Amino acid sequence: MTNILDGVRILDLTRVMSGPYCTSMLADLGAEVIKIEMPEIGDEARHMGPFIEGHSTYFAMLNRDKKSVTVNLKTPEGQKIIKQLVERCDVLVENFRPGVMARYNLSYDDLKAINPKLIYASISGFGADSPLAAHPALDIVIQAMSGLMSVTGEENSRALMTGESMADVSSGIFAAFGIVAALFNREKKGQGQHIDVAMFDSVFAMLLTGLSQQLYLDKTPAPMGNRHPVTYPVDSFPTRTGDIVLCCFTRPLFEGLCDAMARPELKQDDRFRDNAARSANDNVLRAIITQWTQNHTKDEVLAALGKAGIPAAPVQTLAEAAASEHAKARDLVQDGHHAGLAQAPLVQQPLRFSSAPRPSSQTTPILGEHTREVLTKELSLDQAKLDDYAKRGII
Amino acid sequence: MTNILDGVRILDLTRVMSGPYCTSMLADLGAEVIKIEMPEIGDEARHMGPFIEGHSTYFAMLNRDKKSVTVNLKTPEGQKIIKQLVERCDVLVENFRPGVMARYNLSYDDLKAINPKLIYASISGFGADSPLAAHPALDIVIQAMSGLMSVTGEENSRALMTGESMADVSSGIFAAFGIVAALFNREKKGQGQHIDVAMFDSVFAMLLTGLSQQLYLDKTPAPMGNRHPVTYPVDSFPTRTGDIVLCCFTRPLFEGLCDAMARPELKQDDRFRDNAARSANDNVLRAIITQWTQNHTKDEVLAALGKAGIPAAPVQTLAEAAASEHAKARDLVQDGHHAGLAQAPLVQQPLRFSSAPRPSSQTTPILGEHTREVLTKELSLDQAKLDDYAKRGII
Repeated sequence: MTNILDGVRILDLTRVMSGPYCTSMLADLGAEVIKIEMPEIGDEARHMGPFIEGHSTYFAMLNRDKKSVTVNLKTPEGQKIIKQLVERCDVLVENFRPGVMARYNLSYDDLKAINPKLIYASISGFGADSPLAAHPALDIVIQAMSGLMSVTGEENSRALMTGESMADVSSGIFAAFGIVAALFNREKKGQGQHIDVAMFDSVFAMLLTGLSQQLYLDKTPAPMGNRHPVTYPVDSFPTRTGDIVLCCFTRPLFEGLCDAMARPELKQDDRFRDNAARSANDNVLRAIITQWTQNHTKDEVLAALGKAGIPAAPVQTLAEAAASEHAKARDLVQDGHHAGLAQAPLVQQPLRFSSAPRPSSQTTPILGEHTREVLTKELSLDQAKLDDYAKRGII
Repeated sequence: MTNILDGVRILDLTRVMSGPYCTSMLADLGAEVIKIEMPEIGDEARHMGPFIEGHSTYFAMLNRDKKSVTVNLKTPEGQKIIKQLVERCDVLVENFRPGVMARYNLSYDDLKAINPKLIYASISGFGADSPLAAHPALDIVIQAMSGLMSVTGEENSRALMTGESMADVSSGIFAAFGIVAALFNREKKGQGQHIDVAMFDSVFAMLLTGLSQQLYLDKTPAPMGNRHPVTYPVDSFPTRTGDIVLCCFTRPLFEGLCDAMARPELKQDDRFRDNAARSANDNVLRAIITQWTQNHTKDEVLAALGKAGIPAAPVQTLAEAAASEHAKARDLVQDGHHAGLAQAPLVQQPLRFSSAPRPSSQTTPILGEHTREVLTKELSLDQAKLDDYAKRGII
């Protein structure tokens, strides 16, 4: 079995999260990813916690199976190295602010002259042609502006962020999708191209549930806590040992819940006769269900709901999710290698391909770990040249 | 210019959200998507609101540019139609519970015998080989179990759902990524394959910020409202006209904020001397900043922050995001066609490819709109046969 992206070579000029998330997905599928970092400083994510023995575990998780090569893009020699590598690569990915790559003489137009089949993906907050092109595009900014925050939170309360950098992650996945689509297209048509990925557009394109209200009914969705917008009870509830979620979106499921709670009289209660009524009286019904759940453990409540055939689940912490039987059976957390750390748990992209192996042990690089190896092998730079470049801060 | 997925044909057996989200991304890139729906009933999403004139706008947004063909998978004749279409398709996507496709005699093994180059993607909650394979896998269940909810919410409060079906959407995007990667691989190696996409694994693989704490430090992240885990002030604040977010993650930015608030004395305040101190005294600092922001409009606060070079943004509703200058400039909401609706606004996948056109006006199908067209053209079924099949509930 060979890897899905066997033989594909990625020149990775990305930093922090969206770009590195994208290229890690490609590395997981067996692409060779040459990650370019600033000499001495490296990807900014190397300076973001949590740290173990001075190494960022955040960086480690985001950069599995990449080769770290230090090149100073601000120097003419560094730019020449990049151009020479571009000749030998299939894909370039960058997530600088629009305009920065042109300042380094590394714009798409600069590089397609060198390698017309190059696929060049740019991830930015708003895209190069947006009136907001120059606006700072941190994850929190995009979550705020795209509308994602506006639909998250408790009812009648302030808008909340999702507790993961969804704007970064989602634009990274979309970019990876675009890159492999362009690689497929290139196999058939022989052409390279530029792919423009905006973080705002990426998050906005995910919000189709809210937009199906906004765009068609001109009804602006607001935070609803954990309850479903139209069916009830679909919500989270507290038990003695933690929260659970349950989903009774039909009359039979609601009747099953009444029996599970030993409250059969609720089936005749007019306030709960159908979804519309239950939805309108959600506060009353929430209090009744909570009265039951909070007097039992999570396991007791889930067992009773399971017996009644009601879809339900525990709200798990990351500790519980990572240690779950499911995560173990699917091998979601794997041991990796890191030259400076005794242990390096890594989590790969989630897909399983029947024709390709799943990498069983990935390496996550320290800064410049592969500089000399790559530049010697790919560009035939000799030891004296490399020493000179290192001394002058070029690599 | 031709489409990126020109000539690719997708047999789409998906329903509700994760699968349809996946195949809509492929349709946006020019693949021909033949969507199979149950006669008379259709995709369950057709029965989920919001509705206009009986048509689900949620369904409409999720199924742009697909052909709707009704086939009853429970009948032998229906299964035969699917098998004949499989011979003529590159990709099959399904998101039934594990085991259902085998019951229809349409498992991967059944179909690869017919078309060895078929790429067959299965989206499910936990994957076919998980101990939880049979567990119901609604979006809320996966948000709860994967850990996503556990990191979202106000500090010291209950875990909250993200206000969009992130488990559905993200597994759909990952699946689309896997499908185009497998198409690329097939161009080079000639082989088809099965792709197994679990919603749990998809969400879990996105939570790398939280997992970089959990897996390396054994420190379990909890909801933090809108504040950044280590730097402060990075948070949302209320103004007279709505919330804004601001990001002061460095000393110079914090000093700029003090000046913008006309509170220069705070620069000397020992409680706020560095990120660690500001983070520890976040409640005091939050109150001080709120005192300033709540006495001004959003525009006034954003103007002052912009002048000070502090990254900031308004928290926008979906109405504001959709009507923004950015969304207009990037043409994020487009007019589509729907046989039963006067207007059908649609939002495509977000990427722009320089070598390919972006579809300018997509159609979203009513139930069975293309049944006769597709079955006549692809399988040469004649009018009498089609009438007979329709009468017997096969199509």
